[in-house]
Amino acid sequence: MRTSIATVCLSGSLREKLHAAAAAGFDGVELFEPDLVAAPETPEEVAALARRLGLSLDLYQPFRDAEGVSEAEFCRVLRRARLKFVLMQRLGIDTMLVCSNVATASVDDDEVSAAQLRRLGDLAAEHGVRIAYEALAWGRFVDDYRRSWRIVELADHEAVGLCLDSFHILSRGHDPAAIEDVPGAKIFFLQLADAPDLSLDVLSWSRHHRLFPGEGCFDLGSFVGHVLRAGYAGPLSLEVFNDVFRQTDVDRTARQARRSLTWLEDVVADEGSWPSLADPPARLPEIAQPVGLDFVEVRAEDTGEADVVLGQLGFTFRGRHRSKDARLWTEGRARVVCNEQQPREPEPRLAAVGFEVEDPAASAARARALHASVVFRRTLAQEQELPAFRAPDGTEVFLGHPATEGGDPRWAPEFQGGHEPGASLLTGIDHVNLAEPWQCFDEAVLFYSSVLGLTVAAAQEVPSLRGLVRSQVLRSGSGACRLALNVAPLAWDQASGYPQHVAFATDDVVTVARRAVERGLVPLEIPQNYYEDLHSRFDLPAAEVETMAELGLLHDRDATGDFTHFYTATVGSVFFEVVQRRGAYDGFGAPNAAVRLAAQSR
Amino acid sequence: MRTSIATVCLSGSLREKLHAAAAAGFDGVELFEPDLVAAPETPEEVAALARRLGLSLDLYQPFRDAEGVSEAEFCRVLRRARLKFVLMQRLGIDTMLVCSNVATASVDDDEVSAAQLRRLGDLAAEHGVRIAYEALAWGRFVDDYRRSWRIVELADHEAVGLCLDSFHILSRGHDPAAIEDVPGAKIFFLQLADAPDLSLDVLSWSRHHRLFPGEGCFDLGSFVGHVLRAGYAGPLSLEVFNDVFRQTDVDRTARQARRSLTWLEDVVADEGSWPSLADPPARLPEIAQPVGLDFVEVRAEDTGEADVVLGQLGFTFRGRHRSKDARLWTEGRARVVCNEQQPREPEPRLAAVGFEVEDPAASAARARALHASVVFRRTLAQEQELPAFRAPDGTEVFLGHPATEGGDPRWAPEFQGGHEPGASLLTGIDHVNLAEPWQCFDEAVLFYSSVLGLTVAAAQEVPSLRGLVRSQVLRSGSGACRLALNVAPLAWDQASGYPQHVAFATDDVVTVARRAVERGLVPLEIPQNYYEDLHSRFDLPAAEVETMAELGLLHDRDATGDFTHFYTATVGSVFFEVVQRRGAYDGFGAPNAAVRLAAQSR
Repeated sequence: MRTSIATVCLSGSLREKLHAAAAAGFDGVELFEPDLVAAPETPEEVAALARRLGLSLDLYQPFRDAEGVSEAEFCRVLRRARLKFVLMQRLGIDTMLVCSNVATASVDDDEVSAAQLRRLGDLAAEHGVRIAYEALAWGRFVDDYRRSWRIVELADHEAVGLCLDSFHILSRGHDPAAIEDVPGAKIFFLQLADAPDLSLDVLSWSRHHRLFPGEGCFDLGSFVGHVLRAGYAGPLSLEVFNDVFRQTDVDRTARQARRSLTWLEDVVADEGSWPSLADPPARLPEIAQPVGLDFVEVRAEDTGEADVVLGQLGFTFRGRHRSKDARLWTEGRARVVCNEQQPREPEPRLAAVGFEVEDPAASAARARALHASVVFRRTLAQEQELPAFRAPDGTEVFLGHPATEGGDPRWAPEFQGGHEPGASLLTGIDHVNLAEPWQCFDEAVLFYSSVLGLTVAAAQEVPSLRGLVRSQVLRSGSGACRLALNVAPLAWDQASGYPQHVAFATDDVVTVARRAVERGLVPLEIPQNYYEDLHSRFDLPAAEVETMAELGLLHDRDATGDFTHFYTATVGSVFFEVVQRRGAYDGFGAPNAAVRLAAQSR
Repeated sequence: MRTSIATVCLSGSLREKLHAAAAAGFDGVELFEPDLVAAPETPEEVAALARRLGLSLDLYQPFRDAEGVSEAEFCRVLRRARLKFVLMQRLGIDTMLVCSNVATASVDDDEVSAAQLRRLGDLAAEHGVRIAYEALAWGRFVDDYRRSWRIVELADHEAVGLCLDSFHILSRGHDPAAIEDVPGAKIFFLQLADAPDLSLDVLSWSRHHRLFPGEGCFDLGSFVGHVLRAGYAGPLSLEVFNDVFRQTDVDRTARQARRSLTWLEDVVADEGSWPSLADPPARLPEIAQPVGLDFVEVRAEDTGEADVVLGQLGFTFRGRHRSKDARLWTEGRARVVCNEQQPREPEPRLAAVGFEVEDPAASAARARALHASVVFRRTLAQEQELPAFRAPDGTEVFLGHPATEGGDPRWAPEFQGGHEPGASLLTGIDHVNLAEPWQCFDEAVLFYSSVLGLTVAAAQEVPSLRGLVRSQVLRSGSGACRLALNVAPLAWDQASGYPQHVAFATDDVVTVARRAVERGLVPLEIPQNYYEDLHSRFDLPAAEVETMAELGLLHDRDATGDFTHFYTATVGSVFFEVVQRRGAYDGFGAPNAAVRLAAQSR
């Protein structure tokens, strides 16, 4: 199907928006009137530029407060509409969005609205254009697509049809199933937006917090299914008002937007909702969720401090890479590569995360189809090809074959000259905690969910001494892969980066901690007040609490199980955690995060 | 009355919070449990530090999920409470906040809750402490202070009283009048928070968006009046969960918080709500709103470009200052000082705004009582003393006597060697537009409203090419003083400052614009598309629109009148506007702001 995007989704001037939409692969745009009004280019120049860029101008929008008005007011509406229809002719746009009246509506009568739309339709037809009537969620009288459709039906005019917008329908909780009762030819336009789950007034929610499909909580797959089954054959068009996207890089946002539509087409196809159209979507390559976390990579000019901490945690040095300045450390299925190929990065940081996927080639093809940025990686003879992509937050995401049960991944033999691993106390990587700049968060959620197929799970807000940290977990269904995306408080993010970390899983956290301390690890210093509070909360045996205090262990518990964990000091911008889960506990010790963050601030 | 602040209002470690609260002049603090749990200091150290700083520890908070539970659960509650009561003894805190049950409530029965509070009261009394029961706005069963009071009445225990929190009561729209029915001695504690007008779920609203008194929309003056008439004699204590204050400078936030209580005491006293207490508040000096904008000051190493633009706008050069490197320009009652005493500031910026007040000494005393930062200003013999204070955004605020009708202010004769002003087309300064860094906005609202007595008026969101600009107007009742506080989109604010501007009023904007163009002013370039749209919106005569297009004039209209205006180019970070208001139009041409911002981006 054709794809389109409203210019209001993007930052910059109209010219910049058109260039970005074309570069991201959109077929057309909706022209948002204020973007034209503020542009120095004439309508003819805009039309010519769009033509050169291969973009159709699919919709002129919005035309407000058109119907449900007194006759005197309607005369002013007709005058205004005539001027806009002439403008549309100059632009070469054949459809105008007319939204339900908010400001001037005085007549709450479908017959009156229909009669006025019919007269607008006559005027539109005279100019060779048509109008698509949309029920705004906050329309004065018309705020439900079923009513807007009734009015369009009553208007009964070939130049008068419906515009459907997923936000206005789903935000109100209206059942989209009745869309299938509308003849496809009368659905003149389809606007798509996702949104987060907020209990905010619908106008503020709409104007500030819309998201691209896949970034929010709306079921857009089945929504679009209804529209397609009705027979709609126009473009899938994005209309997303978002405070962040309006101010960030226009090209990047356009690519993100385009990715969201590819993802959505795939979801729709997956659900079998795609009707027999002449132009079915290109299906994405099949994807299964990752089956495990393969490795993480710490990168710096000198990763020595990280190497020391890994040794203290029980990792075995497995050797140097045959062609790169990198070392491999493993303990059980937990693997860390320390990479010193980066002479310009003095401080160690978490640079890459490897995922184990059943079919790396298929996963890589999917990532490419979703316009993920490819990471160049030198692969010499007899080395494993590991496709890699750059996540919006800058993390390099590698895709590799699963390791054999208990064994090494295929790429491990490229590291030579180290020790054989012995019995291991760590079982693997439990989760990875990434920092997201504020402007990357939604894009990152879409990236990890669409490219890797991870699903959005629990979200938390964690108080630090410097403000609230927002944390969003993405995971595979099995729990084999868990990522937490963290947005630091602005003042913190502006002053310095938020540290990232890798948590290793064990079945015996006390022994791992004791061994590490014996090897010289200084655990993060946890206050005695914490242990007294723990005692009051959980009625733990005194000896157990004493051991925890001695080793700097933290503890959490819920109805499903419990969680004991400890943290290393921070090296550069990365630190490590070791966690032991008991029962079905599936959290991350969130109640302890404030204590950890305070300790890290000291 | 005594003043207190919850440690959760502030950023930093517990030690830093205590120091900041003491430095800002608070008498005590509420100890927020997570702040203690995360602190390395023992309870005894915390108590000793507070003692040294002269702070009382007024409340231990919060104790959650205490009542309305099964007997088995209540046994766990008692165990937990006993440990906390012992802790309070170590801290020397005599009151604990117990909030209504959110998570574990299973029995919706006032008798059961009361009986459990009574047993908690027995245990508290054994430890020499007491509990203050608070209805959270989102409590499972108890979410109304009238119900929490019924339960406390039923509990009928000397160690069990009420905690009242303005947020939990006013956010739900509950009438606070019934507070007067509660015996003052049973109100153990009073927590105060303001909040903006948001239609958000009450929990998110409370956790992220609370404000200090005077910064939001709650009527805290009459709220506190009810509590005082009930006979409450404890501290006025602030409990403000705010995402910004949690991450910004602790000392600055503490001062802002203390200012809000001084303001609030004044409001309460003004309303005559203050009962005959032993300890009435120190009244602030009387204040009347400013009667006019006296002058603005542009500051830079070289303000030459600004001087040129002022000349083009018709300003007369009135002379150089007798002792400072500054020049005065006037046109009617519009006055601009160009100050070149700042060798380190290469780019002209708006540095100061002078206000005409009836009694500068009283206004200055009020500013000092509100802990406003004093600006040092060298005043030599025979020069006017102009008291000045620094606003949170850095703007210097000067307080001067009103100029005589049609004449100059008292300080004008200090500028010598210029021309005599002729007939003037400008009538004065219409408004001043200031840029607020995101972390200063609420503090600035409180500053301008408490120190100058301006009132909060219309708020707008204006789309720019780089995101939405939030704009809040403050004004005097007469309209003689209008300030707009603007918060730029983050990406913009991080990359470069948002420009500020001064708007001059005229009764003949066309002549001012034509004269300026003849003198070489290049008005901001407004697209032809704008004028076509204007024609469609307002049905203006074609000749009028042509004149507007020729001179770069913009136009707006509402039911009360209309507004025509134009902008100069930006010099450094400042530009000028000339506006003509007709009828009772009281806005700022907000629909044109996007066009102006786009033009400024080119």
